[in-house]
Amino acid sequence: MTTERQRSTDAALRERARAVIPNGMYGHQNASFLPDNFPQFFARGAGAHLWDVDGNEYIDYLCAYGPILLGYKHPTVDQAAGAVQDAGDCLNGPTDKMVELAELLVEITPWADWAWFAKNGTDATVYAASIARTATGKQTILRARGAYHGSSPTWIAGDREIPADGTIEYDYNDLGSVRAALDAAESDAAAVMVSAFRHDVGIDQELPTVEFARGLRELCDANGLVLILDDVRGGFRLDMAGSWAPLGVDPDLSAYCKAIGNGHPISALMGRDSLTEAVAATMSTGSYWFTAAPMAAAKATIETMLEIDGIAHLKRIGNQLRDGWQQAADAHGVGIRQTGPVQIPLMLFDGDDFTTRNVPRAYRFAAELAERGVYLHPVHNGFLSTALSDEDIAHTLEASDEAFAVVAADFAD
Amino acid sequence: MTTERQRSTDAALRERARAVIPNGMYGHQNASFLPDNFPQFFARGAGAHLWDVDGNEYIDYLCAYGPILLGYKHPTVDQAAGAVQDAGDCLNGPTDKMVELAELLVEITPWADWAWFAKNGTDATVYAASIARTATGKQTILRARGAYHGSSPTWIAGDREIPADGTIEYDYNDLGSVRAALDAAESDAAAVMVSAFRHDVGIDQELPTVEFARGLRELCDANGLVLILDDVRGGFRLDMAGSWAPLGVDPDLSAYCKAIGNGHPISALMGRDSLTEAVAATMSTGSYWFTAAPMAAAKATIETMLEIDGIAHLKRIGNQLRDGWQQAADAHGVGIRQTGPVQIPLMLFDGDDFTTRNVPRAYRFAAELAERGVYLHPVHNGFLSTALSDEDIAHTLEASDEAFAVVAADFAD
Repeated sequence: MTTERQRSTDAALRERARAVIPNGMYGHQNASFLPDNFPQFFARGAGAHLWDVDGNEYIDYLCAYGPILLGYKHPTVDQAAGAVQDAGDCLNGPTDKMVELAELLVEITPWADWAWFAKNGTDATVYAASIARTATGKQTILRARGAYHGSSPTWIAGDREIPADGTIEYDYNDLGSVRAALDAAESDAAAVMVSAFRHDVGIDQELPTVEFARGLRELCDANGLVLILDDVRGGFRLDMAGSWAPLGVDPDLSAYCKAIGNGHPISALMGRDSLTEAVAATMSTGSYWFTAAPMAAAKATIETMLEIDGIAHLKRIGNQLRDGWQQAADAHGVGIRQTGPVQIPLMLFDGDDFTTRNVPRAYRFAAELAERGVYLHPVHNGFLSTALSDEDIAHTLEASDEAFAVVAADFAD
Repeated sequence: MTTERQRSTDAALRERARAVIPNGMYGHQNASFLPDNFPQFFARGAGAHLWDVDGNEYIDYLCAYGPILLGYKHPTVDQAAGAVQDAGDCLNGPTDKMVELAELLVEITPWADWAWFAKNGTDATVYAASIARTATGKQTILRARGAYHGSSPTWIAGDREIPADGTIEYDYNDLGSVRAALDAAESDAAAVMVSAFRHDVGIDQELPTVEFARGLRELCDANGLVLILDDVRGGFRLDMAGSWAPLGVDPDLSAYCKAIGNGHPISALMGRDSLTEAVAATMSTGSYWFTAAPMAAAKATIETMLEIDGIAHLKRIGNQLRDGWQQAADAHGVGIRQTGPVQIPLMLFDGDDFTTRNVPRAYRFAAELAERGVYLHPVHNGFLSTALSDEDIAHTLEASDEAFAVVAADFAD
């Protein structure tokens, strides 16, 4: 079922990009990290489908690395944003959409008293750390080893592998290591930063245990630390009240981005009234943080998710995909591991090892899927949208069956 | 010429905001810093005019604090962005618009080899500092006392008045103080950060002297420092090739935001090929950094500015405004100081002193203008758009004449 796929326009654009963009591309959308047959440049999207600049079509399992939750060009969301854009988006102050969005978020998030908006997920995680430092008068942030909280000097020292000064690492789901990090902070700990689940690139995902989540809450309460949930990756895909709501554990601050506006640029931090003095004392702002169209988009995204029970839909198709992949892999004798929430799928291959950047099976599988019109990142978790249909899943599993056959043949023992 | 102005909708929204937004509002668009009759919430904009949520109309001299360069809802820009939005904006990779925008920027900026895009001006200034640190292996950034480069822990320690660790201050336009800062850095200086002109809030603006700009360039060359121009405030209003192009001084990195996309959310960093290795070694990315619509908007904004010679238009109306204000102030015996580029006007009043937050004349003048349908920030520099007409300026000067009369009467010696 492979089809002839064109690449000439993409190749020409890459050549032009090398002349005017540093190293041809930067950041997480740099296709040089992907199999050779993956495109760098795209032309359009609609629902669960994407087209690259050469007109090749893909069923999409990456969702722009998370932001697309209801499918590309969702009519309700885009009409809400467009209507506001037509009146005025970037003005001398916010519009009523900012209040409406904050009211909606506070309404669906029982523990939170307020919402604050910015543009990047990193804006929210960095500001959360700054608020915690102001509130406690202490400097050290405890954070999980290997966890990504944004490309800011607050979190990383240049390279993403190097933790920034002012942070001490613990191991995810290991309360003992958190206590050790607290001791190592020598009474200077301001906060515990924790991702909603463990989603470090290229290694198996890990859901938090209830004991770990509750233990962090108790440790923060007992020691006067701020508990910051980084829900940038999981937010609005795991639970509309926040990804730790099903665990019954409430943070003090929670950072959102990605799925909140179905691709329209907005991030959010939610928090408790006990921290509003620290907010007032900690400067934060940005040129476009008050623009109205993304706020209208976020409101429409959340309302639509609530209306259609989007979380249930994502879980249903996520389970179809996970079960289908497992059956196909088993049938071909290919060892795989599927981890984390089904809505944010990650499949890794036995025999591959991302820690040594040796992942030929994952790259071959993803490349074979791309030839068959399915876009799945080889080592970064995927993201599902509610636009995925049963037909999309059926086509994907058919393509996957062929791709597993290739992997089985190429990597036979 | 005052008209009855409504405030009830704004008041009701402020009340609602206090319940769900920390302290009711945050950041530079927080109206609690403004005269009481200024609105917090806006409804729409068109050309050089704005309407608040109560329907009050204003001729606008703030331009959303800078982003609006060609007027609100500029048809060419918004159609370019809208067409891309209709195809697909936030995808698994950028579209050809990213290459086209980078090509255009490199074309109009003779010294620069590449362009990089993000969302906040702060993303660009912080990344510039990180690149300089990676490139030089040194840590200290020399920056002007009181200068604002973004609300990031890289630049400020919580409050905007407190410079962050890792920076040493010099005085703008004082080369001796830069040399002293370099000595104080004890061979650990990575970069000199400098704003295109001095625009610290509430004090007289200051254009750079040619000697200062050239001296920084020579000092950086002689000592292996990266020269970073913060052109977030001035970019695309002072000169389309960068605000220091008329001085004949080229930086190594230049940060843009605000006016680049006429309100569509995008920032940029431009740089030299000598720094691309440092870029590759310094992680940077963001969820929405590759979205296509703001890139199309920025391309259309820059092309339109070139086509209409927007800079010349801004200078012409800026001089009309400056001359008109000076004549009116003189006629009423009110002492004022107008400083900085006419396109980014700042008028301060003799007798006021922002350093002690004692600026009653500026607040009275701005409040009187607002009553007459003119929006001018009392102490932050204004921004002109090319949409301002001769009629707008005439109305503004008529309103200003009445406002100066009020100031003269209220603050008579």
